[in-house]
Amino acid sequence: MIGKIIETFTELTMEWLKDILEYETKGKGMTKINAGVEALVKKYDIHEGMCFLYIPHVSASLTISEGFDPPARMDVVNFYERLVPENQPWFEHTIEGPDDSPSHIRSTLTQTSLSIPIDDGCLTLGIWQGIYLFEHRAHHAEQKGMPRKIFVRFLKVS
Amino acid sequence: MIGKIIETFTELTMEWLKDILEYETKGKGMTKINAGVEALVKKYDIHEGMCFLYIPHVSASLTISEGFDPPARMDVVNFYERLVPENQPWFEHTIEGPDDSPSHIRSTLTQTSLSIPIDDGCLTLGIWQGIYLFEHRAHHAEQKGMPRKIFVRFLKVS
Amino acid sequence: MIGKIIETFTELTMEWLKDILEYETKGKGMTKINAGVEALVKKYDIHEGMCFLYIPHVSASLTISEGFDPPARMDVVNFYERLVPENQPWFEHTIEGPDDSPSHIRSTLTQTSLSIPIDDGCLTLGIWQGIYLFEHRAHHAEQKGMPRKIFVRFLKVS
Repeated sequence: MIGKIIETFTELTMEWLKDILEYETKGKGMTKINAGVEALVKKYDIHEGMCFLYIPHVSASLTISEGFDPPARMDVVNFYERLVPENQPWFEHTIEGPDDSPSHIRSTLTQTSLSIPIDDGCLTLGIWQGIYLFEHRAHHAEQKGMPRKIFVRFLKVS
Repeated sequence: MIGKIIETFTELTMEWLKDILEYETKGKGMTKINAGVEALVKKYDIHEGMCFLYIPHVSASLTISEGFDPPARMDVVNFYERLVPENQPWFEHTIEGPDDSPSHIRSTLTQTSLSIPIDDGCLTLGIWQGIYLFEHRAHHAEQKGMPRKIFVRFLKVS
Repeated sequence: MIGKIIETFTELTMEWLKDILEYETKGKGMTKINAGVEALVKKYDIHEGMCFLYIPHVSASLTISEGFDPPARMDVVNFYERLVPENQPWFEHTIEGPDDSPSHIRSTLTQTSLSIPIDDGCLTLGIWQGIYLFEHRAHHAEQKGMPRKIFVRFLKVS
């Protein structure tokens, strides 16, 4: 372990900013949202602080995963499809379709909230990291006619 | 992606509040704690800010999932029972009972910390979202005689 | 549910501190990092506030789990080895080795960010809780020649 002090802020201003991102999903899969979140970091001119993401859904979730090679992303998507298959005979909640209970389960296995630091004007994402909206329903947009929302809060330190 | 600015707080007061929630669990299963957390939001009169939940246990965890249809919740509970069954022949840690290692594993698959925004005096939970204390031990309360704790911190912005 | 007010901070000072922890990993497995994080809490003399941990990698992750009995930790490690085995015939992303896609998947099943309160000068970890850097690659250090990083942010309240 090597602890290196980078910077200490003792005479500082803290600001609190809030926004919402909305995405239309097209069936099951992972939608990369780096650009949307980074655009908000720029919009509010945040150089240091924290980004809090929250998804208010039970059949779509958040995850951070490999963000460049599409086959790598397909392996993640296919893993969850295999780990939590539809139409299990022991499912009790079936009235909202075969993909509803798997959606809830896959959401609990991934994330509802993420906290990402901001450093030098950018999210501290690793070079390979993508932030993803993970849609677990086959026909969310068509059925509900509404986009998925992600609530964003920033603690801006300057 | 549609980014909509909702509000910016630049002349603000930030307060920091801390509390503890305690729940007696009755064997494995999910206990909905929305009411307990929302009561604290009201108690401290928080209209905008952030709620941080932390569970200091290794055999109980936190998750956000479907909060209304009991069969939907049963499917989540039963999924984890099937994914991480007791009495696996390859378990090495068995001295604390057959449900102990599965408890640790199920905790790592779900959450220890959650960060939920507060908006207009309420947690920004989606309409179907329940916050759950997920007990993974069969007889925690009887064995230990103590409730499960959840540490709560609020960043109150006004 | 019993909500007990512990303390309210209304005339307070908030500070923001940032640091980085670095660890050399030796193949797959869980490295306990409690000492590294607690050392930073002490270094910055934080008695109350929040610790935010973020790992900027896609093949190593964070988790909080049982921190004392080595066999208990082995059961967690072995579970993920069994849940997400290498060399699945349906993997499409194989050019970076048989452990790469499983690494991404195991990262999504565990955590990229953690938020841990600080109370009375210490992280509010439960007595059995260990914070772990979970390395999912067999030969990360040898292949890449660089340590795993964890970005740390503190909100210090006093």
